[in-house]
Amino acid sequence: MRLIDGKAIAAQISAATAGEVAALAADGITPRLAVVVPTRDEATAWYVRSIERATKRMGIDCQVEELWDATADQISARLAGLSADPGVHAIICQTPLPPGTSLHEVARQIAPAKDVDGASPASLGLLAAGLPVFAPATAEAVTEILRHEQVPLEGRNVVVVGRSTVVGKPAALLLLAQNATVTICHSRTRDLAAVCAGADILVAAVGRAHLIGASYVAPGAIVIDVGTNPTADGGLAGDVDADAVAGIAGALTPVPGGVGPVTTALLLRHVAQAAAPRQGPA
Amino acid sequence: MRLIDGKAIAAQISAATAGEVAALAADGITPRLAVVVPTRDEATAWYVRSIERATKRMGIDCQVEELWDATADQISARLAGLSADPGVHAIICQTPLPPGTSLHEVARQIAPAKDVDGASPASLGLLAAGLPVFAPATAEAVTEILRHEQVPLEGRNVVVVGRSTVVGKPAALLLLAQNATVTICHSRTRDLAAVCAGADILVAAVGRAHLIGASYVAPGAIVIDVGTNPTADGGLAGDVDADAVAGIAGALTPVPGGVGPVTTALLLRHVAQAAAPRQGPA
Repeated sequence: MRLIDGKAIAAQISAATAGEVAALAADGITPRLAVVVPTRDEATAWYVRSIERATKRMGIDCQVEELWDATADQISARLAGLSADPGVHAIICQTPLPPGTSLHEVARQIAPAKDVDGASPASLGLLAAGLPVFAPATAEAVTEILRHEQVPLEGRNVVVVGRSTVVGKPAALLLLAQNATVTICHSRTRDLAAVCAGADILVAAVGRAHLIGASYVAPGAIVIDVGTNPTADGGLAGDVDADAVAGIAGALTPVPGGVGPVTTALLLRHVAQAAAPRQGPA
Repeated sequence: MRLIDGKAIAAQISAATAGEVAALAADGITPRLAVVVPTRDEATAWYVRSIERATKRMGIDCQVEELWDATADQISARLAGLSADPGVHAIICQTPLPPGTSLHEVARQIAPAKDVDGASPASLGLLAAGLPVFAPATAEAVTEILRHEQVPLEGRNVVVVGRSTVVGKPAALLLLAQNATVTICHSRTRDLAAVCAGADILVAAVGRAHLIGASYVAPGAIVIDVGTNPTADGGLAGDVDADAVAGIAGALTPVPGGVGPVTTALLLRHVAQAAAPRQGPA
């Protein structure tokens, strides 16, 4: 089994983005990303710091807006304010949100042109309709990795495990747009292993560490592991049991070092695109 | 094989809608549907007349707006005008559109609260996000028929043939929301018959008369035929070869008399809901 090098793919994407940022700088434009952080959460804080470092390296301004203990209405109002602020090109809203609040509910206030992580229902609808829009970076990382790996999608059986609006559904839509035959599975799917074992390409986005074992993978299948499950020792575990599938899968994205770095690189590419005067989402 | 009686299901839905319309009338409200017809087309004209008859029977006002030879911009402007008109509760835009124009492009101008056929990308996004919205009536007819027939969906394998934004994708989203495992197929799917033959429930929305033959259907499968392909003699043919699957399928919606009447009944239900002061999409 080949391990897919997400860091190398991310480096290629970032090199191209650096060129776009340099071109913007020549026009006097510094892209600016606003990161709204609604709740105190250790994993979120870690991720936000990594975004701050990545934007700084790229020459992108990053303003972190901590709205701790804010209500859903206050978060929505802040996102609307940032959408109206001409000095802000791009907006992301971190989870977790206050109890009872869904990301899609507050993300309705993010203008599609600034919605670089495809979080709003409007962006999801544009994606489903095949119109220009920023896809959720994690979902796009799936198809971007497959493209870099030159894995043909047309007519291939792709199984997506997980139906979240931030990964599973948008990934399914992106794969469908590339002419894959797409099956969406979830916690209620009967005999999940058998369904997964029918896949040429398996996308695991279910959020359960090491759920995907040997019986889930067809010989030679390409496996994209979107899982980022925290481990007891402070690390990350994927949804795939890499040791168990090592003798079966054709290729696998490791966790960490697979989907994660590609996601961050795509997010920065979206920020640069959002800052370009007439470009917007690709 | 049992033939599913779409007219009987439609009659049940319409009886409930008549009650809602009567309640609105008691409050002095007559629901009003605007139907925008952008091009001269015989099949469209036939459908619009059937909508006019159905709304009249239901006590719903129907204003048909013929915009023949209009440009995409003119159609968009009219839809925006109707969205802003407080006298109009509900809007649908007929196809075909002028060459090079997509329904989703012009339907962006239909306000979600009046978008009773779920045509705008915003509505599709709300549907994908699981938020309240009017689903496209044809897509909703699929799940409504299965509900009336008491076909359990949880964990069942459903195959949707067709990935259009008006039927295939929204039907897949509605089925997924009811915990089915959903596979979306299309013209590029390899060995379509074998994929379809794995379905407990098969939804044909591909637009090719009698494509779905005996080899596509598992014994006992429930088959929903969304096809409305015009025949040489002026009739309608489904996507399913009913004679060929008669000895195999457990149940089938006929064409005509299956999905069609349920679609119209749901559209009228949506119009009544759109006219209700505080109700909106369910």
